[in-house]
Amino acid sequence: MPPVNTLFASRTEALRPSAIREILKATGRPDMISFAGGLPAPELFPVDAVSAAVERMLGEQGQAALQYDVSEGHLPLREWVADHVRETVGLAADPDDILITHGSQQALDLIAKALLNPGDTILVENPSYLGALQVFRAYEANIEGVEMDAAGLVPAALGDRLGRPGPRPKFLYLIPNFQNPTGATLAPGRRAEIARIAAAHGVAVIEDDPYGQLRYAGPFPPCLAASADAGPHDTSTISPVYLGTASKLLAPGLRVAWAIVRHPELRRRLIALKQAADLHTSGFTQRVVHALVRDRHWLGAHVARLRAAYASRLAAMDAALAAHLPPGTEWTKPQGGMFVWAHLPPSLSARDLLQRCAEAGVLFVPGDSFWVGAAPHNTLRLNFSHASEERIATGLALVGRCCHSLVKTAGVSRPDR
Amino acid sequence: MPPVNTLFASRTEALRPSAIREILKATGRPDMISFAGGLPAPELFPVDAVSAAVERMLGEQGQAALQYDVSEGHLPLREWVADHVRETVGLAADPDDILITHGSQQALDLIAKALLNPGDTILVENPSYLGALQVFRAYEANIEGVEMDAAGLVPAALGDRLGRPGPRPKFLYLIPNFQNPTGATLAPGRRAEIARIAAAHGVAVIEDDPYGQLRYAGPFPPCLAASADAGPHDTSTISPVYLGTASKLLAPGLRVAWAIVRHPELRRRLIALKQAADLHTSGFTQRVVHALVRDRHWLGAHVARLRAAYASRLAAMDAALAAHLPPGTEWTKPQGGMFVWAHLPPSLSARDLLQRCAEAGVLFVPGDSFWVGAAPHNTLRLNFSHASEERIATGLALVGRCCHSLVKTAGVSRPDR
Repeated sequence: MPPVNTLFASRTEALRPSAIREILKATGRPDMISFAGGLPAPELFPVDAVSAAVERMLGEQGQAALQYDVSEGHLPLREWVADHVRETVGLAADPDDILITHGSQQALDLIAKALLNPGDTILVENPSYLGALQVFRAYEANIEGVEMDAAGLVPAALGDRLGRPGPRPKFLYLIPNFQNPTGATLAPGRRAEIARIAAAHGVAVIEDDPYGQLRYAGPFPPCLAASADAGPHDTSTISPVYLGTASKLLAPGLRVAWAIVRHPELRRRLIALKQAADLHTSGFTQRVVHALVRDRHWLGAHVARLRAAYASRLAAMDAALAAHLPPGTEWTKPQGGMFVWAHLPPSLSARDLLQRCAEAGVLFVPGDSFWVGAAPHNTLRLNFSHASEERIATGLALVGRCCHSLVKTAGVSRPDR
Repeated sequence: MPPVNTLFASRTEALRPSAIREILKATGRPDMISFAGGLPAPELFPVDAVSAAVERMLGEQGQAALQYDVSEGHLPLREWVADHVRETVGLAADPDDILITHGSQQALDLIAKALLNPGDTILVENPSYLGALQVFRAYEANIEGVEMDAAGLVPAALGDRLGRPGPRPKFLYLIPNFQNPTGATLAPGRRAEIARIAAAHGVAVIEDDPYGQLRYAGPFPPCLAASADAGPHDTSTISPVYLGTASKLLAPGLRVAWAIVRHPELRRRLIALKQAADLHTSGFTQRVVHALVRDRHWLGAHVARLRAAYASRLAAMDAALAAHLPPGTEWTKPQGGMFVWAHLPPSLSARDLLQRCAEAGVLFVPGDSFWVGAAPHNTLRLNFSHASEERIATGLALVGRCCHSLVKTAGVSRPDR
């Protein structure tokens, strides 16, 4: 008998049990106050608008919505996306540049599948989105973190890395707005510079922008892809790919997102991989999304409602952190998105804290899951979009109490393990 | 500058332009009579029932339907699937054995991703489903065809192949009922034998059953997975995996399917890969499917309506083939499913015929796309579920006329190219 692991593809040996998965399960418990998942507020989902849109859409095109569809996605939705990215992030795209995916996670999976051979190097902001790291690990990539600060990825750090000899990274993956997990936004002045450095070294940029429209203060900067010099006819390097989604604009349960891919050969291969992966994204949910977003007046009012509600929750979290967390705790002040990123005093371990907090009825994600390489033990990610302001205050009071109880037993905790 | 192909993963070099993709595009032309795609009849989609189910479902659980969900799928749907496969194909499964996927195509992709290293050998019926061949090629599998006849895969041919020395195939992929493309059904007496041969050689069986419920005559045989000896605790080999789908039962546009995976470690890896691939299947469409199928009375009446309509179309196609195709043409007499498979007289090339037919306004799929290795030039797949009986008669009269015009110019055609 062969050993069990010869039954499986070697790529699956790299799969780790996901903290996010377990967290999503735990947040199903109604008594828990959760700052863990990246969940939108369910009471802000446009349930009635979805219901009305489905009824209207099925009346007009029910048979088409329920039939097989083309792999690149429903054309009217791709036309709307082209207009949307031009207006919101300054990106000139043709509907034929756009691939509709079953959530942005699928876009990441298909891009990694199209570009990565086992052992290829890629660069990510450090820390970065856990779901992206999981995809890249599943394609056996060598993942390197690049330094970031409060203004996002540091261009000089990227330049230093790419100036070193050795294999050229396949791509740089980044989240320019209200990054997951830090909440940091890449400074507008750094965007063209990063695009220029990457292009000069022949490194593609994968720009993942799920949160950009959830901006509660300040101006909307253009995307990196818009500032990149690489035109559609320079096919010797991959021009930047931009990812957007309906998950945060409308609802993640619809699983509709879009990738703007201006490099023709990459697009051709992605469409073939999309077809092999699942034929096409549900034409039903694509039409539901289109029926909602094409009403600009409604969409504007809906997004304004989200921004107002999340801004209040962010303010509530900021105030509660100041009121309850021990001296020496530091946290980010994002202007949008869903996450605050905190550093506990160095004597406290986020994993130890989570254990106490879970017993006390409150959850967050310890930051070490998001790091590539050595991870500090005292970072944590706090989601502020899911819980109400009242529960944010209650929950952070509990977190504060658990911090203080840990401080008292600090001799027992092992902060440097 | 490196050559362009170093930009991409080597696995994408194996991607071929898909005949099915181009066919699905062509069938968008309303004037064409198409026997090409594997499309259900859109006028039989339960549009009103879907509309009512959505309204009711959103009223009861709208917020949950629009939120992020667990990767393995909506529990009430998995519970229904467990009951459904027990009742219809005799398979004992626990809801925890079930993974909900974004169509069966995704199940094929995830299974290939979990099991295949580049260069691994797999076995398929010859000919087989083009979409599966595309997936297996994208994972750089070495695909071998196994002989089939009118009663499906030939057990002796499988035994001979597995008795030969050399690398053991990772799995055998087959479609036991109303196979795509041949319409053949694996004889009930062969099922346990094939399961036994595969198990004896440590070869997994991937049993893809999208059409099994679309049976218009004869008894329903149990699935291979049910007849396999391998219990859940023999983890040294992979026990058979069974795939079902709502695409043919309800509507493919919903993209909801299920994989029954009783091998615990394979299941664990598939769930991790599913999470990396797209987090989870839309909780919205999963709940729509569940809201429909849980009404057994409605589902029974709906499936009965499909069976009656498709049986009439199959009879119409059989009669039209007899009336219009040239002497020497042979075709299968399936008892269900969506496809008839035809052999033209050897002097005629299916590709040449398709060219004339497309000009005349009628489409089919030349059979050579479905073969592994050497492909006869004179086979074709005809779908009978999509077009009305009247259009089936009209379309096959056109095909017949094109055959006769090709026969006249046979010196020009190159049947053996």
